[in-house]
Amino acid sequence: MCNVVAISSMSMVPRFQRARSPAAREAAEEAILDAARDLAAERRVRSVTLTAVAEMIGMHKSALLRYFETREGDPLLLTREGWQEWSPQLQHDLRSLRKPTPASVARVFARTLAARGLFCDLLAHTPLNLERNVSLDAIREFKLATHAEVEAIIEVVREMLPILNEDGALDLISATTALAGSLWQIATPGPEVAALYRSDPRLALAVVDFEPRLARILTRLLEGSARR
Amino acid sequence: MCNVVAISSMSMVPRFQRARSPAAREAAEEAILDAARDLAAERRVRSVTLTAVAEMIGMHKSALLRYFETREGDPLLLTREGWQEWSPQLQHDLRSLRKPTPASVARVFARTLAARGLFCDLLAHTPLNLERNVSLDAIREFKLATHAEVEAIIEVVREMLPILNEDGALDLISATTALAGSLWQIATPGPEVAALYRSDPRLALAVVDFEPRLARILTRLLEGSARR
Repeated sequence: MCNVVAISSMSMVPRFQRARSPAAREAAEEAILDAARDLAAERRVRSVTLTAVAEMIGMHKSALLRYFETREGDPLLLTREGWQEWSPQLQHDLRSLRKPTPASVARVFARTLAARGLFCDLLAHTPLNLERNVSLDAIREFKLATHAEVEAIIEVVREMLPILNEDGALDLISATTALAGSLWQIATPGPEVAALYRSDPRLALAVVDFEPRLARILTRLLEGSARR
Repeated sequence: MCNVVAISSMSMVPRFQRARSPAAREAAEEAILDAARDLAAERRVRSVTLTAVAEMIGMHKSALLRYFETREGDPLLLTREGWQEWSPQLQHDLRSLRKPTPASVARVFARTLAARGLFCDLLAHTPLNLERNVSLDAIREFKLATHAEVEAIIEVVREMLPILNEDGALDLISATTALAGSLWQIATPGPEVAALYRSDPRLALAVVDFEPRLARILTRLLEGSARR
């Protein structure tokens, strides 16, 4: 997430409107993704608009739309990138466990996600974006890329916890992505909303600590699944 | 979800621009919520725009904004309404269980949610909407109303499964709402996307059957939690 690099590198890229060679097109696409990633990390995924991305890289919005179909296509690319960055780290940390148990496996999931706020934010948006303004080709590519990661993770989880069957490992991933998306949103309110939650004891349920809560739920789920 | 009634009842309501009495204001608010609910059920929550709601009830968009702060305030009201409708039914069905077990309790959660697609759709949007363009008062009211339902549900769940502690029951609700939101989106793609998933065996993971999948995950979670 280096805003300065993303912005200053822009001057090195040929004018995007003329980026007709594959290399120039790729450079433009990368610049757009860099800008979207920085904006999302800074302001949350939901606040990233095509206009803001276009402004950040000095490209006209209509030109930008030549690279990305829609506002929704862009977060999908970031989410895919997020899976491809998280998954190897998760697999590595799982394999490094000396004594894999439901609790220690769950803690690795929770810890690696807690360190990836932008990815968690994106996970909450993905199911909604897939249904809106995204081409079938983009959906297919996204699904193939993320499913490859899901399958790799399932394999490692089952190596670590051989008592777990295929369904149990798949349920772990479903629960992880659903909960990471929603708990992260709940656990990281803006400063005003956070102050509201702390100020009123009737709102105590709204105060959520992301990593321990996610670890606890995934531990119980794995313990239940491991009994089969 | 009766479009016809919602639209035709409009002619009975005084012109909204002049709705200055509390009763007229209430009627206008109700008409707006009716329209938003019908549109959301028909086209999905994400597609509901202020413009579409305004058109449906023949009110100018700027007039509509006098009743609802923002595009995001409206789904929150529908979500609150959704909790207040789902929760009593859930509690009733839980209390009617002859032999409450983790599996039978989980099945009641899954069955009552599978019958409420709009509520599931709304649940996926709520954590995102709470952080955007919604006043602190609206957030407080929303949280107080939904927490009252969460607490009532926790109480009934613990009556049915006394082995479950407070945390276990709370985790059940967190997992339920997160999974209902995300699984429902995944399980109900539009016809084109559904055809894509069926056409390519590499996309088999994307085909999800909402009710059995949710029931299975919640059963495992409850079994894990009940061991404590």
